[in-house]
Amino acid sequence: MIALITDFGLADPYVGQMKGAILAGAPGALIVDITHMVEPHNVAQAGFFLAASLGSFPKGTIFAAVVDPGVGSERRIVGVSKRGRILLAPDNGLLGLALRGPGAVEAFDLTPASDAAASATFHGRDVFAPLAALLDSGEELASLGQGIDPSTLAPGAVSEAKNTGNTWLAHVLHIDRFGDCVLDIASDARLPVSGGAMLTRPASFVIELARNYESLGYGRIGLICGSQGFYELAVNQGSAAEVLGLALGDEVELILAGEPARP
Amino acid sequence: MIALITDFGLADPYVGQMKGAILAGAPGALIVDITHMVEPHNVAQAGFFLAASLGSFPKGTIFAAVVDPGVGSERRIVGVSKRGRILLAPDNGLLGLALRGPGAVEAFDLTPASDAAASATFHGRDVFAPLAALLDSGEELASLGQGIDPSTLAPGAVSEAKNTGNTWLAHVLHIDRFGDCVLDIASDARLPVSGGAMLTRPASFVIELARNYESLGYGRIGLICGSQGFYELAVNQGSAAEVLGLALGDEVELILAGEPARP
Amino acid sequence: MIALITDFGLADPYVGQMKGAILAGAPGALIVDITHMVEPHNVAQAGFFLAASLGSFPKGTIFAAVVDPGVGSERRIVGVSKRGRILLAPDNGLLGLALRGPGAVEAFDLTPASDAAASATFHGRDVFAPLAALLDSGEELASLGQGIDPSTLAPGAVSEAKNTGNTWLAHVLHIDRFGDCVLDIASDARLPVSGGAMLTRPASFVIELARNYESLGYGRIGLICGSQGFYELAVNQGSAAEVLGLALGDEVELILAGEPARP
Repeated sequence: MIALITDFGLADPYVGQMKGAILAGAPGALIVDITHMVEPHNVAQAGFFLAASLGSFPKGTIFAAVVDPGVGSERRIVGVSKRGRILLAPDNGLLGLALRGPGAVEAFDLTPASDAAASATFHGRDVFAPLAALLDSGEELASLGQGIDPSTLAPGAVSEAKNTGNTWLAHVLHIDRFGDCVLDIASDARLPVSGGAMLTRPASFVIELARNYESLGYGRIGLICGSQGFYELAVNQGSAAEVLGLALGDEVELILAGEPARP
Repeated sequence: MIALITDFGLADPYVGQMKGAILAGAPGALIVDITHMVEPHNVAQAGFFLAASLGSFPKGTIFAAVVDPGVGSERRIVGVSKRGRILLAPDNGLLGLALRGPGAVEAFDLTPASDAAASATFHGRDVFAPLAALLDSGEELASLGQGIDPSTLAPGAVSEAKNTGNTWLAHVLHIDRFGDCVLDIASDARLPVSGGAMLTRPASFVIELARNYESLGYGRIGLICGSQGFYELAVNQGSAAEVLGLALGDEVELILAGEPARP
Repeated sequence: MIALITDFGLADPYVGQMKGAILAGAPGALIVDITHMVEPHNVAQAGFFLAASLGSFPKGTIFAAVVDPGVGSERRIVGVSKRGRILLAPDNGLLGLALRGPGAVEAFDLTPASDAAASATFHGRDVFAPLAALLDSGEELASLGQGIDPSTLAPGAVSEAKNTGNTWLAHVLHIDRFGDCVLDIASDARLPVSGGAMLTRPASFVIELARNYESLGYGRIGLICGSQGFYELAVNQGSAAEVLGLALGDEVELILAGEPARP
């Protein structure tokens, strides 16, 4: 199975052409769209989507994540294996968040020796699709490129929250269709699931620590351990982004009232 | 085959994660998107899309319709079989329109005994996807939950037009990409296919009863027995919603000039 | 494999219903979306998408392109074979660009004898889907309709640039998500890949002839032989449409500084 993340959008024929090229190389391939609506050139958002989606797909899945402002430049194209999954991406920091945490990583440089044959502008169709097709057909990463030291991969493009005692300085990783604001506080921070907190930046709001949207009062603002591996600011049946005036990448300061939970 | 209707949108990775979870449980499943652009939390619109789409899919299809403002609350998750198709949805009225009309209905309560293992916020991926995968793999509804009396299902969320003689009081069920306004007058009302009519609310317009868009004069307003099982207000190569100033849910009054057609 | 291009959008259930109808007729069919976001009724844009996508799909692919302002009128529905691919479309000029260039063409009139059984308004689901399913199941075009002279097909809806010496009068065929403006100057014009040029209409801009986006200076405007078989105006990490004030269909005049490249 091949899972796709791109910033190609859905109005242009690019995603369809990439799929056609995959299926030309691997006629039986099963292709699943994660999303193609990454903000154009937003490598960090793509990195968040990839990391948040890995666990939903079975082992053996090949992820091709193509958000590539440097197409045509000297940046490498890399293939990485971790915990039974294969990740293909430009080496621009997109993979950073997905490679955090436990699990051995093997990395390979899959940059084509020459792109004379390939279009110089559409590597999704002309480079990533054939690579994904070969891997789906059973080729090994090691036979497609040179092994490289994973520590040479570009540093991760996704931010990480910092905390001092009960104060968290975090950033908005993603705002979803419902206005929920995903923060860069990972689930394993294990914040309390009840009690109060204050949002002190960008403005002051009382918030609730809650288990899910429904356990918030109607219209109340909550901090919830969401489904994407990170904490989220949410408003029950409303848009947290609108209520709190938050945009992608904004800095957020939170002060929890109680003790941090112990693992 | 599994057909999906959700309000998850296409910009977030939610639909892809739900598909990954289905395919993790049912590796050979064929998944078809009906739409993921239901207005957030609009249960009635999802109910219309589901009812309008049932007949286009072959028997044996499993429909998973997840528009669920009450996720995390006490509402049930139900599975229903009717005319060889299986429908999965939260028990919030979404199924009402699909279950109208002839055909025996069997209903089952599929609410998980405990959602400790499941994320508390993303039932599409964590509850509906595994259920759909089990059903696609051949499990019976009866083996996944307790039979329930279909009359205990939440009342349908979709409105129904009322008529007195030649006057119809109807509502806008849906406005499509072309501006066509689907009304809650079902096709089996068998209105005349030619002749005149007046729209008297929200404002006065002369309209034509017509067989299709093309048989309307250019820019003329028509009432057409559309492709979705309901009558539609349409403008040939224009937007009826714009011309008539209609929005989703609006009330509409129509007076037909002739006799209602006899079945 | 069946590849789809429509103007049905992704918010309505139309694409899903069309796929359901295909799969009801051809249970094992593999369906790939090229795009469903063609501007409503924009036959020329659909024709460009189709022509630009043909080469990305393997031989044997069936393309169904449904942008059909004349649905319900007397226009024919045609099936065409060229270079091992089958194209289904209304006979409204959509196929013109795809049929330019070398390769023998066979054409067939597939208009249903009577559409009494079919909905009068949704030919995508009720006419094109069953045709695509039959073709995917191995039926021949010749067994589904009468052969017709390809020269009787409606003239192509897509414009063609004209050049006199180093001056090109072209049109904007498409503006993509990144703001790149595809012109109707085909790749085989073989313009120089370096050197300068002037855009003289709609306004005066110095532009660069370049091999790809990255080889342009940051924010510089370039003319690039793009991935879609045509030249594009592009701005490295910016929107050419915005910088140049271009919209779909706009006329553009270019004067190249050097000699045209020789084939």
